[in-house]
Amino acid sequence: MRRFNAIATALLVILAACKNGNSENKVPGEEKTKLSVPPKIVDLTHSFSDETVYWVTSREFELDTVFEGHTDKGYYYSAFNFTTAEHGGTHLDAPIHFAENRQSVDQVPLEKLVGPAVKIDVSSNALNNRDYLITKEDFIDWETKNNMQLPQGVIVLLETGHSRYYPDKEKYLGTAKRGEAAVKKLHFPGISTEAANWLVEERNINAIGIDTPSIDYGQSEDFESHVILLGQNIPAFENLTNLEELPAYGFQVVALPMKIEGGSGAPLRIIALLEH
Amino acid sequence: MRRFNAIATALLVILAACKNGNSENKVPGEEKTKLSVPPKIVDLTHSFSDETVYWVTSREFELDTVFEGHTDKGYYYSAFNFTTAEHGGTHLDAPIHFAENRQSVDQVPLEKLVGPAVKIDVSSNALNNRDYLITKEDFIDWETKNNMQLPQGVIVLLETGHSRYYPDKEKYLGTAKRGEAAVKKLHFPGISTEAANWLVEERNINAIGIDTPSIDYGQSEDFESHVILLGQNIPAFENLTNLEELPAYGFQVVALPMKIEGGSGAPLRIIALLEH
Repeated sequence: MRRFNAIATALLVILAACKNGNSENKVPGEEKTKLSVPPKIVDLTHSFSDETVYWVTSREFELDTVFEGHTDKGYYYSAFNFTTAEHGGTHLDAPIHFAENRQSVDQVPLEKLVGPAVKIDVSSNALNNRDYLITKEDFIDWETKNNMQLPQGVIVLLETGHSRYYPDKEKYLGTAKRGEAAVKKLHFPGISTEAANWLVEERNINAIGIDTPSIDYGQSEDFESHVILLGQNIPAFENLTNLEELPAYGFQVVALPMKIEGGSGAPLRIIALLEH
Repeated sequence: MRRFNAIATALLVILAACKNGNSENKVPGEEKTKLSVPPKIVDLTHSFSDETVYWVTSREFELDTVFEGHTDKGYYYSAFNFTTAEHGGTHLDAPIHFAENRQSVDQVPLEKLVGPAVKIDVSSNALNNRDYLITKEDFIDWETKNNMQLPQGVIVLLETGHSRYYPDKEKYLGTAKRGEAAVKKLHFPGISTEAANWLVEERNINAIGIDTPSIDYGQSEDFESHVILLGQNIPAFENLTNLEELPAYGFQVVALPMKIEGGSGAPLRIIALLEH
């Protein structure tokens, strides 16, 4: 049995074990005393705060206090409102962000956002070059090294190493300035057009993620990798973190965006599940 | 092996299968042709839109268009900003919402939000009484019927059946009016104080969810079930949907809130994973 098939089979084993457990002789309360060993969970998400990194022209995160303190009735209470652009911090790009009439964030099938994943570490190149374009060869090198093609339906995470600079805008975005004039000062790695075309033509992936502000590099003017990948209904995860804690393969990703009806993207909470 | 222990073991089986796969003889590309059978995913989340149900005094969801159409450069582009209260639609209540100095939403451990879950169906009582208070006996009845105690660390979902009324505010909240004067008109089921106390004193659950606007019923004035449960660092999921698609047990829940630093709650995307 091959690896990714094994994952699917084992998921069914879990559920079957779950269900069949019922036919065994159970002593009420016995479960309560058993030690369970759940998988390790790695949070690949930056927090939203006034430090959250946004595109230089985008509205930033703002948290407003509605109430915070003790009420007349005696209980403590706190509640906030917030405002944000869809595309800031750790977030999902839905196909409709760059492809007309394609899926909005609420329409992206959950089956594309949950499942086996791989990590491709390009940090040795990308940390030396803030304009680095991830190449087709980076993907092929990963395949050669791991002795397999990118499996059908896999989620691909790209580690440039640049999340170490987050939330320092000068280092992470290339500029701490904001507004239209700052767009030309953006410098961070992304995916080359050639690699994006190769992914949609030669492989069949479910989703792609990166630890920079965008799947197109900072100096991009026409966002071709977005157009190519989102155009094929491949959603993108941007501003990821903690990818250095992941192996090259053999883990699951669960990427759940806020369910905004008609949204072009949304704040994303994304985790990896792996063996301890 | 008991059911919930089996789940944890099987999760390790997945990951081991994943990892060990590497030592087998692989033919590049072979995986690509294999059929995988992932678990069924049920989305327990309402979408955010101008129909989203909020507390009668809370700020509602608002989506503002930044750009939508073809750009000068030739590519299509759409992007939006949004504003919302933390507590509206399908969302998480963090302990600090009703308990001073407790966990904010970014501090809630992911281990409490991911794992085996049970569903307790109280709809036969709750659909006949919009002020229904879920009792300790409802939990004990579930335990008797399923021949087990609520397992340690389980996520408990409560099905009142009231999500069928969403987003009709008159039927779901008890009133379509808004503002302070409408608070007294709220009518929907919640958890009794006695049941909340029993849960924290006699059982050890990780999280609790319900398909109504609040874990306290609409007529509550002091929100005691919030104070009791959140006070014990048990986060709550509110305004869930699709619970009728779940069995009594034998499934996993993944509940991922937007990671708002210091937030008292957040929009939540919550899914269940189960056997086909």
